[in-house]
Amino acid sequence: MSNSSCLAIVLAAGLGTRMRSTLPKVMHEIGGLPLVGHVLNSVVGAGADKVAVVVGPEMPKLEEHILSHVPHASCHVQVDRLGTAHAVKAAETAYRDTSDHVLVLCGDAPLITAETLHRLRKRLSGGADVVVLGFEAANPFGYGRLLENDGELVAIREEKDASDDERSVNLCNSGIMAFTGKVLPELIAEIRNDNAKGEYYLTDAVEVARSKGMRVVSELADEKEVQGINNRAQLASCEAVFQQAQRETFMENGVTLQAPETVYFSYDTEIGPDVVVEPNVVFGPGVKVDGAARIRAFSHLEKAHVSSDAMVGPYSRLRPGAEIGEGAHVGNFVEIKNAQVEAGAKVNHLSYIGDARIGEKSNIGAGTITCNYDGYLKHHTDIGAGSFVGSNSVLVAPLKLGDGAFVAAGSVVTADVPENALAISRSQQVNKEGRATLMRKKLSAAKALRKG
Amino acid sequence: MSNSSCLAIVLAAGLGTRMRSTLPKVMHEIGGLPLVGHVLNSVVGAGADKVAVVVGPEMPKLEEHILSHVPHASCHVQVDRLGTAHAVKAAETAYRDTSDHVLVLCGDAPLITAETLHRLRKRLSGGADVVVLGFEAANPFGYGRLLENDGELVAIREEKDASDDERSVNLCNSGIMAFTGKVLPELIAEIRNDNAKGEYYLTDAVEVARSKGMRVVSELADEKEVQGINNRAQLASCEAVFQQAQRETFMENGVTLQAPETVYFSYDTEIGPDVVVEPNVVFGPGVKVDGAARIRAFSHLEKAHVSSDAMVGPYSRLRPGAEIGEGAHVGNFVEIKNAQVEAGAKVNHLSYIGDARIGEKSNIGAGTITCNYDGYLKHHTDIGAGSFVGSNSVLVAPLKLGDGAFVAAGSVVTADVPENALAISRSQQVNKEGRATLMRKKLSAAKALRKG
Amino acid sequence: MSNSSCLAIVLAAGLGTRMRSTLPKVMHEIGGLPLVGHVLNSVVGAGADKVAVVVGPEMPKLEEHILSHVPHASCHVQVDRLGTAHAVKAAETAYRDTSDHVLVLCGDAPLITAETLHRLRKRLSGGADVVVLGFEAANPFGYGRLLENDGELVAIREEKDASDDERSVNLCNSGIMAFTGKVLPELIAEIRNDNAKGEYYLTDAVEVARSKGMRVVSELADEKEVQGINNRAQLASCEAVFQQAQRETFMENGVTLQAPETVYFSYDTEIGPDVVVEPNVVFGPGVKVDGAARIRAFSHLEKAHVSSDAMVGPYSRLRPGAEIGEGAHVGNFVEIKNAQVEAGAKVNHLSYIGDARIGEKSNIGAGTITCNYDGYLKHHTDIGAGSFVGSNSVLVAPLKLGDGAFVAAGSVVTADVPENALAISRSQQVNKEGRATLMRKKLSAAKALRKG
Repeated sequence: MSNSSCLAIVLAAGLGTRMRSTLPKVMHEIGGLPLVGHVLNSVVGAGADKVAVVVGPEMPKLEEHILSHVPHASCHVQVDRLGTAHAVKAAETAYRDTSDHVLVLCGDAPLITAETLHRLRKRLSGGADVVVLGFEAANPFGYGRLLENDGELVAIREEKDASDDERSVNLCNSGIMAFTGKVLPELIAEIRNDNAKGEYYLTDAVEVARSKGMRVVSELADEKEVQGINNRAQLASCEAVFQQAQRETFMENGVTLQAPETVYFSYDTEIGPDVVVEPNVVFGPGVKVDGAARIRAFSHLEKAHVSSDAMVGPYSRLRPGAEIGEGAHVGNFVEIKNAQVEAGAKVNHLSYIGDARIGEKSNIGAGTITCNYDGYLKHHTDIGAGSFVGSNSVLVAPLKLGDGAFVAAGSVVTADVPENALAISRSQQVNKEGRATLMRKKLSAAKALRKG
Repeated sequence: MSNSSCLAIVLAAGLGTRMRSTLPKVMHEIGGLPLVGHVLNSVVGAGADKVAVVVGPEMPKLEEHILSHVPHASCHVQVDRLGTAHAVKAAETAYRDTSDHVLVLCGDAPLITAETLHRLRKRLSGGADVVVLGFEAANPFGYGRLLENDGELVAIREEKDASDDERSVNLCNSGIMAFTGKVLPELIAEIRNDNAKGEYYLTDAVEVARSKGMRVVSELADEKEVQGINNRAQLASCEAVFQQAQRETFMENGVTLQAPETVYFSYDTEIGPDVVVEPNVVFGPGVKVDGAARIRAFSHLEKAHVSSDAMVGPYSRLRPGAEIGEGAHVGNFVEIKNAQVEAGAKVNHLSYIGDARIGEKSNIGAGTITCNYDGYLKHHTDIGAGSFVGSNSVLVAPLKLGDGAFVAAGSVVTADVPENALAISRSQQVNKEGRATLMRKKLSAAKALRKG
Repeated sequence: MSNSSCLAIVLAAGLGTRMRSTLPKVMHEIGGLPLVGHVLNSVVGAGADKVAVVVGPEMPKLEEHILSHVPHASCHVQVDRLGTAHAVKAAETAYRDTSDHVLVLCGDAPLITAETLHRLRKRLSGGADVVVLGFEAANPFGYGRLLENDGELVAIREEKDASDDERSVNLCNSGIMAFTGKVLPELIAEIRNDNAKGEYYLTDAVEVARSKGMRVVSELADEKEVQGINNRAQLASCEAVFQQAQRETFMENGVTLQAPETVYFSYDTEIGPDVVVEPNVVFGPGVKVDGAARIRAFSHLEKAHVSSDAMVGPYSRLRPGAEIGEGAHVGNFVEIKNAQVEAGAKVNHLSYIGDARIGEKSNIGAGTITCNYDGYLKHHTDIGAGSFVGSNSVLVAPLKLGDGAFVAAGSVVTADVPENALAISRSQQVNKEGRATLMRKKLSAAKALRKG
């Protein structure tokens, strides 16, 4: 099989009216990735060297996503929507140029795994011309049933056409099929639309293939893996299955999830062994956490890297480009964006650190703000190793603090600070004796007046 | 039925000792509204033009809640607690003045819907004198059973009085009943207390009515809808049912809930289509979110309005009077109270904005605080359109910044800033070379001393 | 039994390779306490006056935890791992010196209760020589079966040695046993290792005891209570059982949990009646909340005390030593560490209060930071009663504000403030007319340049 070429055709033209959304259905997300992206990952994982996606007219963001995710994919617009076989036909330029194997998938069934697709391909390599992926439905009502005989698939019978005996079959059609590249064009060409709706159904390929003496078989998948999405409740239910799988995988790999059901992962989250994740943590896309780090409760991470033995949270927000060094601490109500917090450094309270480097073992006081934006451009703040920035300071970028610099609490720092220098910008404190008593009198009189 | 008058009598005098609370039982909340408020909403929704609530003695907050929620309601104190019929009798002044229909409900069964009450009224309009709302219990043990014959309700049999055959019935009494206004006074008057506890039971109305040749029937509701609350575990379980229903409704309407089980709604939450709600969001009472807004993780909203295409969170707290304009951004660790953030404006980090207006497309820097309170009165801050407030500034109200004003980072602004002016209040920065080295020596000596 | 002496032997030498961790298995935590700590609590609760823990070689942190948790415990190193009886033998110095009762427990089965252990001891007091704790397994496959006859335990049969009839038994061995101190040494001494693995199994004690005419019986526990932990998924599942039990207990005691499934407790959390806990709250170890306080959403508490009628959150972080007085308010994005917030005081927004006292009824403005750390030492801030600290102030410790002191917004306070005095440290505000227009020109030119 490693030598066989493989084309994957992903049907993604559906509008998904039951989603009640302006977004194309397959652009809704699970684990931070559009549904179609999950399917694309699986077909690439199953060795598809050619990928054709059938999209609807005027779905520019969908096409853009497909091409950014799989640059060698091709998009094919299905203008009218005349059934699944008609949709496949929209990709004719892709399948005409014969591949050994052709997989046909639904863009709205995101949980299909590369491993299952491999099994379909194996059946093709083993001599089948057509393979239909089936599943044993807990409640088969409404699904097409796979009718088998002697290990061959005889027909796919729709609910409404089924006899009582056939309805008792719970092996159902997932909508995912595999064909040898040799037979597909011929089968698609011969499928007719002489049915109630006047549409071309890909399931009819089974009948056509058998009429030509081809070998048609079924392969089995878990029901969870092939569930499709037609509304937001099903979207949430697929998300839940996806999250559950992620949680189990991480726990097997030695990650402690104190309350697994409250931790949300993205499709590409990476977490090392002996990491402890406390309750209520959200991992957006692009996060990597190295071994033995601790991610405390209520933290939110996106496109960030946390090195080993670092401690993040509670209530830390790591935004894209946050790079937390070994043993560093990022504490509560702290936001880090596009910044390196180097090994052993601490930013523990109520701070915003953006477009910056914080040198090794530096300590950033509570309430410190890097002022990185002037309304037009972003500027960089560079803080040397072993520095100490006093509480509630403002660091106005572009700015450089040398190693060992010290900033007095409450300072607004606008000019560079040399190594081991103390920077201070602070007004003299004045105590006006008895003045608070007078103010209280005046303010309470004003209050009485406003009420009166 | 639209022409029939309707009185609803809500029994709400219970102390709820199993709640172990100083609060009257029906004042405990679900979805941010006291239990009795849910029942009141349903009876009003079912067209009750008169509402009488039977309360216990000395429950001033309960009476206050009832009258603020339904101003035309009347409260009737039941001094002794001698059974449900005795409780109804406390509202005699209400039912004496005959309405066409009388609904009797339990204040501690909050999930009853207006639609079900409508069905009870329909039965009265259709000729029944008394209607008992029943439910099919998963486990009927302990409930009174509804015994029927030929479509009529013959009796309500308590567990302890039931034969084995009767115990096998799983149609149970919900405690909710409907009467024609004509028959109720007579039935209540004839119910006797010749039983073990010496109490007057409303269920005895069935027997009395039948002895007088009246027509008594039952109507069916879902068990979930009629569950009553006697302890905090049941309170939590009703809350869960309520939340689940809210989540399903929103998803049907085209709202994406990435993790529905972590989003909490109030009874009056409104959310438009194509809104995305990330995990761990709490909607307190009085929140409206317009279409295509995004509510990010860990946000908390109360009495606030979010316009379309706005982005809120993660970690945003919107308090009463927060009004977020179209396409505006409110970011992390930001609290907005009684303030308008106008279209396209941004308050992205670690800020407190109270009693203020932020003009269109203004940018409020990280760590900005409106100082709106002097210990006695609240004052207003008005920020014009297209302004830029530098990081960590303090805006001391009352204060007005003209359109296009610019505040330098770290300033304390106490006087109005004209249009397009720059306001700055900042001390000169001084760098003391080598001073940090000296400080470290001194401080480490002090530390050694303190340890020694 | 109150007069009987009792030794508990806790087997805690396992490496737990399936945990994929560098931590000894029993040091993983549930409810904020290592697994072995839960077992130690239960044996102490069951009246064990002697506690011996069998540990693996080189587990210094485990030994440290055991001795800090139960100072009179002894640790015994099992060097080779030759089975459970061999592990017990490692504690020979403890059981040689005969106690009346000896309990043998698994350090990785943390949910065992003192009450169940009491029942084991009662059986010993009632005449049994050996008691095996069993449970009825939902799925007994893989467990040793307890074979009984006439109320006596005849054998523990391993899955692989069981007949079909024996396999149908679902009474299984929990691994927890009790012995009279008199028989244990003799039984351990006679257990042999003539089996496939060449190990010494404690279960063989049943057979040996019966061969000597001793009385061996079983006692029943709930399956949940005796589940052991071998991997992180089981750790999470035990944590879930623990949390569920805590939630139910608190609700029974009159605590409202709006969304019980989102609230995480520690082993020692104490919460008074009529406390309301909103969704998404984490109680770390050492927290006590008095009656009628409210803990709002997204709060995180560790080693803290909240007095009655206080309000905490949303988004409050209480760290060790936080002491919140009656009716005090701690608000959003506020961190309190080692500080007293006295009765009626308010710290409502974006503040860090560390190593401080805030006097009664004082009001701390938004964005206030106590600067308690100079890089070497922590210092104390003392704020008198009825003080008012303006927004975004920095209080540089050591510092004392007298009663009724007033700090102007945006001040950096470095010197003590007398009673009723006003402290202010603020630069003059300067408005530069038209300057914002010029700056925008300059900045937009710079932006164009950078892009170009």
